Amino acid sequence: MVTVNRNYLKLQGSYLFSNIAGKVNAYQEVNPENKIIRLGIGDVTQPLAPSIIEALHKAVEEMAHAETFHGYAPDLGYEFLRNTIAENDYRERGCEIMPDEIFISDGAKSDSGNIQEIFGTDNKVAVCDPVYPVYVDTNVMAGRSGEYNTSRENFDGMIYMPCREENGFLPEFPKEIPDLIYLCFPNNPTGSAITKEQLQRWVDYANKNGSVIIYDAAYEAYISRKEVPHSIYECKGAQTCAIELRSFSKNAGFTGVRLGFTVVPKALERDGVSLHSLWARRHGTKFNGAPYIVQRAGEAVYSPQGKAELKDQIAYYMRNAGVIREGLKAAGYSVSGGVDAPYIWMKTPQSMSSWEFFDYLLEKANVVGTPGSGFGAQGEGYFRLTAFGTYENTLEAIDRIGKL
Amino acid sequence: MVTVNRNYLKLQGSYLFSNIAGKVNAYQEVNPENKIIRLGIGDVTQPLAPSIIEALHKAVEEMAHAETFHGYAPDLGYEFLRNTIAENDYRERGCEIMPDEIFISDGAKSDSGNIQEIFGTDNKVAVCDPVYPVYVDTNVMAGRSGEYNTSRENFDGMIYMPCREENGFLPEFPKEIPDLIYLCFPNNPTGSAITKEQLQRWVDYANKNGSVIIYDAAYEAYISRKEVPHSIYECKGAQTCAIELRSFSKNAGFTGVRLGFTVVPKALERDGVSLHSLWARRHGTKFNGAPYIVQRAGEAVYSPQGKAELKDQIAYYMRNAGVIREGLKAAGYSVSGGVDAPYIWMKTPQSMSSWEFFDYLLEKANVVGTPGSGFGAQGEGYFRLTAFGTYENTLEAIDRIGKL
Repeated sequence: MVTVNRNYLKLQGSYLFSNIAGKVNAYQEVNPENKIIRLGIGDVTQPLAPSIIEALHKAVEEMAHAETFHGYAPDLGYEFLRNTIAENDYRERGCEIMPDEIFISDGAKSDSGNIQEIFGTDNKVAVCDPVYPVYVDTNVMAGRSGEYNTSRENFDGMIYMPCREENGFLPEFPKEIPDLIYLCFPNNPTGSAITKEQLQRWVDYANKNGSVIIYDAAYEAYISRKEVPHSIYECKGAQTCAIELRSFSKNAGFTGVRLGFTVVPKALERDGVSLHSLWARRHGTKFNGAPYIVQRAGEAVYSPQGKAELKDQIAYYMRNAGVIREGLKAAGYSVSGGVDAPYIWMKTPQSMSSWEFFDYLLEKANVVGTPGSGFGAQGEGYFRLTAFGTYENTLEAIDRIGKL
Repeated sequence: MVTVNRNYLKLQGSYLFSNIAGKVNAYQEVNPENKIIRLGIGDVTQPLAPSIIEALHKAVEEMAHAETFHGYAPDLGYEFLRNTIAENDYRERGCEIMPDEIFISDGAKSDSGNIQEIFGTDNKVAVCDPVYPVYVDTNVMAGRSGEYNTSRENFDGMIYMPCREENGFLPEFPKEIPDLIYLCFPNNPTGSAITKEQLQRWVDYANKNGSVIIYDAAYEAYISRKEVPHSIYECKGAQTCAIELRSFSKNAGFTGVRLGFTVVPKALERDGVSLHSLWARRHGTKFNGAPYIVQRAGEAVYSPQGKAELKDQIAYYMRNAGVIREGLKAAGYSVSGGVDAPYIWMKTPQSMSSWEFFDYLLEKANVVGTPGSGFGAQGEGYFRLTAFGTYENTLEAIDRIGKL
């Protein structure tokens, strides 16, 4: 008798962004003439930078000739990319991360979903609330939760750390000590950032309690303040308690190119086992490397020309963030985020629910955002806008919202 | 207390091909002047076909301009590719598979490793022996096996179906009825093929017993005989019992490009649940689409020019297969495979073990193959050679072996 993984049946509805797409499509069908501006999903709109395009063309050309053709990639990723990452993202910031502690992947979504596999199903998982849904859903799918609790609107057996205005959108140590702690800073969805000093407290907490922090730093390129760390390994002792997830999607516009990496330090052991060796085994058994041409594109991100072009691209999006943040403030909304992150987190007006405000914005301003409640119960009453639109669309969207 | 997934600790040593690479590197270091010919790992050597290169360049150029830039791909994959696959791989062969039953991925290795996730951990798994290690290892990692049994050299709690000379390298129905049945035809590693009539018996068996067949058809492009089916959906009733895995690695040389797909028919239900909806959820939660440029390259595989070029590429490799098969026969070896598959499966001479023969070939002929025992206990005494080398290297390798 075949049985299915019944943990999947605990999941609620379908994935957040599919729901949004459904609503937008339905509205657009009835109102085909209205120009909808999407500031909802965290997808970028700027084309790939010239140096990346050049690297891609060059790598494609290599694939056309037997002498320069590349077949299966090394399990961990090509050395040229791992070396560049170790140098630029870590050594230059004073973090001692070696190239062979870096695992190249097809993106941070895959890694953030797959990383839980190397842990036992009996681990207690803590997440921020609101939270990127993938952390929660993949742990539910693996059986690390109870049923969905309809009154609390979250899963039994998981630890939720509320991040609301009252605590500056930063999690507090939970009453029950968690085993796995997911932290994402700069944060999706709230756009909040954590200072090095604040993060150091989490590192100390994890080392003291034997917990493991899964640190998602996908948005580090948007950090503007000096006191905000780009990597958790800037904190002392992080190498014995933290795994870091990184993405090329937001710093280089690779949402449709697919590239990311995960750092698992060799010093990180739990349960008498090296987590590095477990992840290496997972990576080598269930994944066959990111495409050669994509890894070459990733390398170009770190070239002098690439860095300069991408600095401009980040500045472009952060100008949008400023437009949204200041525009909404001027219109009387309560907003946060948008300083070290491409996300602006706003309170819905007049006690509207997140989805009520979604419908309201869609219908009255033809602007699509993301309902805060889609990221967790504590996101209710909040709404996320992203800085990834074009400048022109962002101006127009905020103008429309201001006139409501 | 963090616990790790202790199922990982049941796995034996590291992944087969890493072991081989280690031995080869060690030999090459001591004998830097010797020219080693690799006919071991199933990696291709011919460059990408011109029509694919053209599609890649074109798609890269699209990514350079805001109007044609592509961000996140649709969860299931782009419609242009799913439609083309449905038309060419299925409708043209009389199989009623709809585009929305096709899930585009980053390759068949990922899919063959991940597909088990949608099933309960209590399912009884049957695999051929010898077998592609990923099917076994990923089920061990998920907890569907007992410990490794050192006397039998396989895992307790799994069903192994011996495929040896005596049964024409085809599995027989096992004594105990399995829940999940992994079949790969044309077969890796034995190079054997299954006729439509023979496969129909497995489909009937699965439907009768409520089992699910996970059918890996990664090598279908190499089929030369008419009676051998390219898809399991050529068999009646397969849509209610079979999931099919497909790859672009071997029919189009995408080992370093990374593209594959999985077919889960909507008619396939077990345990009261649609397997299609479970896989859609898995795909949407833990994966973020194959790169746009790679999906365009996949589309080019089905263009008239692409088909013509790839037919030549397959013919090139199958000429190698003929060289190996006939050359080894002439040298007195017992060989099979290489007719509908790029793999040649040979018996080791003089009762040598598979690894003894590996060392012998590496040292005496500087030829690298894959020890049959690396694919399972029943592969002991066999050895795999692949047709993916260059023609010149293949000729030389067989010449060297013939002279031993």
